[in-house]
Amino acid sequence: MTKVLFAAGDARWEDWQAPLEAAFRDAGIDADLAQWHPPAEVDFVICAPAGPHQDFSPYTGARAVLSIWAGVEGIVDNDTLTQPLTRMVDPGLTAGMIEYVTGHVLRHHLGIDRTLRASRDGAWRPEVPPLASDRGVTVLGLGALGLAVAQALAGLGFRVTGWSRSARDAPAIRCLSGAEGLRDALRAAEILVLLLPLTDATEGLIDSAALGHLPAGAFIVNPGRGALIEDRDLLAALETGHVAHATLDTFRQEPLPPEHPFWAHPGVTVTPHVASATRPASAARVIAENVRRGLAGEPLLHLVDRERGY
Amino acid sequence: MTKVLFAAGDARWEDWQAPLEAAFRDAGIDADLAQWHPPAEVDFVICAPAGPHQDFSPYTGARAVLSIWAGVEGIVDNDTLTQPLTRMVDPGLTAGMIEYVTGHVLRHHLGIDRTLRASRDGAWRPEVPPLASDRGVTVLGLGALGLAVAQALAGLGFRVTGWSRSARDAPAIRCLSGAEGLRDALRAAEILVLLLPLTDATEGLIDSAALGHLPAGAFIVNPGRGALIEDRDLLAALETGHVAHATLDTFRQEPLPPEHPFWAHPGVTVTPHVASATRPASAARVIAENVRRGLAGEPLLHLVDRERGY
Repeated sequence: MTKVLFAAGDARWEDWQAPLEAAFRDAGIDADLAQWHPPAEVDFVICAPAGPHQDFSPYTGARAVLSIWAGVEGIVDNDTLTQPLTRMVDPGLTAGMIEYVTGHVLRHHLGIDRTLRASRDGAWRPEVPPLASDRGVTVLGLGALGLAVAQALAGLGFRVTGWSRSARDAPAIRCLSGAEGLRDALRAAEILVLLLPLTDATEGLIDSAALGHLPAGAFIVNPGRGALIEDRDLLAALETGHVAHATLDTFRQEPLPPEHPFWAHPGVTVTPHVASATRPASAARVIAENVRRGLAGEPLLHLVDRERGY
Repeated sequence: MTKVLFAAGDARWEDWQAPLEAAFRDAGIDADLAQWHPPAEVDFVICAPAGPHQDFSPYTGARAVLSIWAGVEGIVDNDTLTQPLTRMVDPGLTAGMIEYVTGHVLRHHLGIDRTLRASRDGAWRPEVPPLASDRGVTVLGLGALGLAVAQALAGLGFRVTGWSRSARDAPAIRCLSGAEGLRDALRAAEILVLLLPLTDATEGLIDSAALGHLPAGAFIVNPGRGALIEDRDLLAALETGHVAHATLDTFRQEPLPPEHPFWAHPGVTVTPHVASATRPASAARVIAENVRRGLAGEPLLHLVDRERGY
């Protein structure tokens, strides 16, 4: 009997217990899933990086700590965590992210906000937007999510530039990397999508200098991490109109405090961290596969490089 | 020298002259393009179905009448038109239609209108929409545009049902046809996209009976033809909430008269016939190819079946 500790909090237990039990059963794993086991007997820990469990030292026999979140910056520097750590790369999460980004990129591309404001006054003003093939979209971050999003946008015909820390290559996407590449990627970004992990190197990357490289009237969609952006610099760029609109799903502090200027700003759309929502049904199958791999001594999926931070 | 008459009106001449001349040049056609030629000497007529030229009998030597519109119901019954008639199937038009429909389907799927209304009040309410794979979208009409749209939606993961008059088959789309098939297609339509041609058989097809088959709270996107819908029946279905929202790009009368109830209705988004805007640059290449075919005696592209009406 494999002892699996669910350490992601009471509120999540409700949503995750049944999908996890089903996934273990389907994977042929005889798992004892619970919110408590004697610590030294735990074989695997399922956690959420900002969850209640922050001390992993008692789980001396655990083969792995399996995050149900994609972003692991809340746990990667935890010194009590000596076990292998995996991130969640949930096919449902990828699908949801593609839908969120594609929806909001098309919203800005087609000018849907303007349509909604203008469609009440009885005035017929046919204005045809450019085609996607004449619209530059840049995706910063070409991890599993960024790459999937970039490919979906390219599939709709957008001129997609992708940027990542280390050089990558992907069909139908102009791939750039490094500091020089970043400037060119920003210059091509009529619509900028942020899907970088949060690390020391990316924190505050989108500051006034970076915003200055964007074409005038650019749109920003940030379903990545709030701290990629310097809030004050973004507000200044919105004030001058250099950035036309920002659709933000992630924030330096979540929930976004009611007094934060993003809420009231007409140039900002706030969505409450829904783009990368993990769907328990599909994510549970990924957890079960990693438990199976851990038991069989096979390499784990989506193992975190603790040095790199993701 | 091939005499090509541009008979689509003065206003369009400005946008079309340069692209057409470039396309003829690129196709190696020695064309004399003008808004007037001696009628009996005209080799090809370029027209817009609701344009100023309605009498085609003087063009006794014309090898074809080439519409710059996709919809030809304004010309197909014209008894003076004895020449072969072609519709416009513009790759730019197809791309623009895919972008319009995908953008508005994702807008309804993600609940973007609700987000825009709610994003000002400082309240953090994470509500995750279902995945596209759990959302049924039905496309009525599987012509060039309908099929391209259905495939783009399937590519984003939506559960797509397509319906057409005669049976069709397409990968990743559940294809239905006939009266029985129509009922099933409507029942699956959490989001209904109308891309049927306007014919005697489709005029008023979306009446109260058809609307009654939709799931409660359905969305409608109509970039096809306005007269596919019985306006009064749609308004009644919006009133009860059975239809949650209709995004309409085409109308029985265009421009939509300022006093029409669609303008003010909170459940209706009016767009001014922009979804199927033909882009002169790409469409001119299609016209040039048909002139080349006509001169070479090859079959014309996108020939209209006058009996069928499209």
